[in-house]
Amino acid sequence: MVDVDSFIDEKIEEISSQVGDANAVIALSGGVDSSTAAALAYEAIGSQLTPVYVDTGLMREGETDQIREVFSYMDSLRIVDAKDRFLDELEGVTDPEEKRHVIGEQFIREFETVAKDVDADYLVQGTIYPDRIESEGTIKSHHNVGGLPDVVDFEGIVEPMRDLYKDEVREVARDLDLEEIIAERMPFPGPGLAVRIIGEVTEEKLDVARMANHVVEDELEEYEPWQALAAVIGKATGVKGDNRVHGWVVSVRSVESRDGMTARAQEIDWETLQRIQSRITGGHDNVARVVYDVTHKPPATIEYE
Amino acid sequence: MVDVDSFIDEKIEEISSQVGDANAVIALSGGVDSSTAAALAYEAIGSQLTPVYVDTGLMREGETDQIREVFSYMDSLRIVDAKDRFLDELEGVTDPEEKRHVIGEQFIREFETVAKDVDADYLVQGTIYPDRIESEGTIKSHHNVGGLPDVVDFEGIVEPMRDLYKDEVREVARDLDLEEIIAERMPFPGPGLAVRIIGEVTEEKLDVARMANHVVEDELEEYEPWQALAAVIGKATGVKGDNRVHGWVVSVRSVESRDGMTARAQEIDWETLQRIQSRITGGHDNVARVVYDVTHKPPATIEYE
Repeated sequence: MVDVDSFIDEKIEEISSQVGDANAVIALSGGVDSSTAAALAYEAIGSQLTPVYVDTGLMREGETDQIREVFSYMDSLRIVDAKDRFLDELEGVTDPEEKRHVIGEQFIREFETVAKDVDADYLVQGTIYPDRIESEGTIKSHHNVGGLPDVVDFEGIVEPMRDLYKDEVREVARDLDLEEIIAERMPFPGPGLAVRIIGEVTEEKLDVARMANHVVEDELEEYEPWQALAAVIGKATGVKGDNRVHGWVVSVRSVESRDGMTARAQEIDWETLQRIQSRITGGHDNVARVVYDVTHKPPATIEYE
Repeated sequence: MVDVDSFIDEKIEEISSQVGDANAVIALSGGVDSSTAAALAYEAIGSQLTPVYVDTGLMREGETDQIREVFSYMDSLRIVDAKDRFLDELEGVTDPEEKRHVIGEQFIREFETVAKDVDADYLVQGTIYPDRIESEGTIKSHHNVGGLPDVVDFEGIVEPMRDLYKDEVREVARDLDLEEIIAERMPFPGPGLAVRIIGEVTEEKLDVARMANHVVEDELEEYEPWQALAAVIGKATGVKGDNRVHGWVVSVRSVESRDGMTARAQEIDWETLQRIQSRITGGHDNVARVVYDVTHKPPATIEYE
């Protein structure tokens, strides 16, 4: 990419001429790639583009509000509240692969509903160069929701950033005033908090996972981890007040890594661990225990499922 | 207790005259109380006493061998290999209370079989004074297997140490040359490793729990914990060799306490935690992750079930 301004001008023209006066949709995930692609396409075709954010209920604390704020300038923005439908579909599903599958399917269903509603002929995607390379491997695809183009039938796919690297995307994003989105966020898996919950996903476990992930991101920011997270991994006994309870065990994980392929568990000082422990056990009635993951990758993975 | 020697002489005489030429049994758990009571009664009535050690398969590494060695001088010693029967009974049992119940019932069945086989009219027990007080509460009974006297029908119960405190029992034990038994062992719950396994007890989980508890006792001895243990608490993803695995999560716990009623998670240095992690993940093919429990009691309990 020679120059950001001329790249943007060129892409705006390309998108306009490709889509013409038809309609287009894009799935906003909250990540930098889809956000930048949406902003580019909106510059080109305005409200002919419908950006769709599906609130799966599996997102981090405040994520939906942030999307609403950053993209409030697009009046065609659709925020789909699909929380209950995702929970319904996930009821009784305990196998990790099946969970991913159920989430992917429901996501496509939600997205397709909007695409049909607005009569979209084009699908805009935030695909970047490394995605096209990596999609031949299995490691990343595993964390992605979707495979939209295979399922929904569009006249054309628009991928304005298909030749860019990540740092170039960030430059474009900055130029398009997407400051809040490009703030370095930690990697977050496509199926969201669902992979940070061992076994069935329920409303209570989601509440615990959301609260605990918020505490961990807040307390461990200063350690500058590659990724810090909390997972609801099971139940064990505890004592709350005068009662013996059978409460959730929350595992806290913080790792250093260059590329995510290997990672080292971070040494966190005892006081910080105690503050995290006390905020998490105090943050929900049914949490009885907090453990800290001391395992590197390998033999553990960074995420829990 | 005025004097250990005269206490022992007095009790030997009492036991002899109570049991006469009948037979008696005692359940050996490996703890100081039952071991001391057995040694006392054996002094009194010799091979009319059958000490019964039930190997439930839920014991710590080396525990059965230690019993065999310490009590090898009693030729009436019965070591019952009940491992398979306990595993069979525990198959499919996931509820913590039901697990305890199943173990208690099977224990009684095994014990009763020997009692009938040797035609025992008397039951010897290592009850001490605090047990009689505490048995009115619920906290300790909860960790005990049994309630033997209620179920098996004996002519009489022999409790030679019913008026002693723990430190007095230790004096008697020393006088009876039970050095190995009175070595300060950490508290170990009656249902054994079963309460250190969340969910169903299987042979594989028992192997993992036994190995991990051995590593933890070995590595954390220098911290002089009130109790240090390892529990198999669930499954999560990992990478072993080139394969993605779904392996066991082992939680390590080490606490300081005065009385077990409240406890503080111990701060363990990072190098030791890493050594534990590497020994445990390396100690069994299907362990993918080690976490360290940072929760005090309350809100967590010391054990996991």
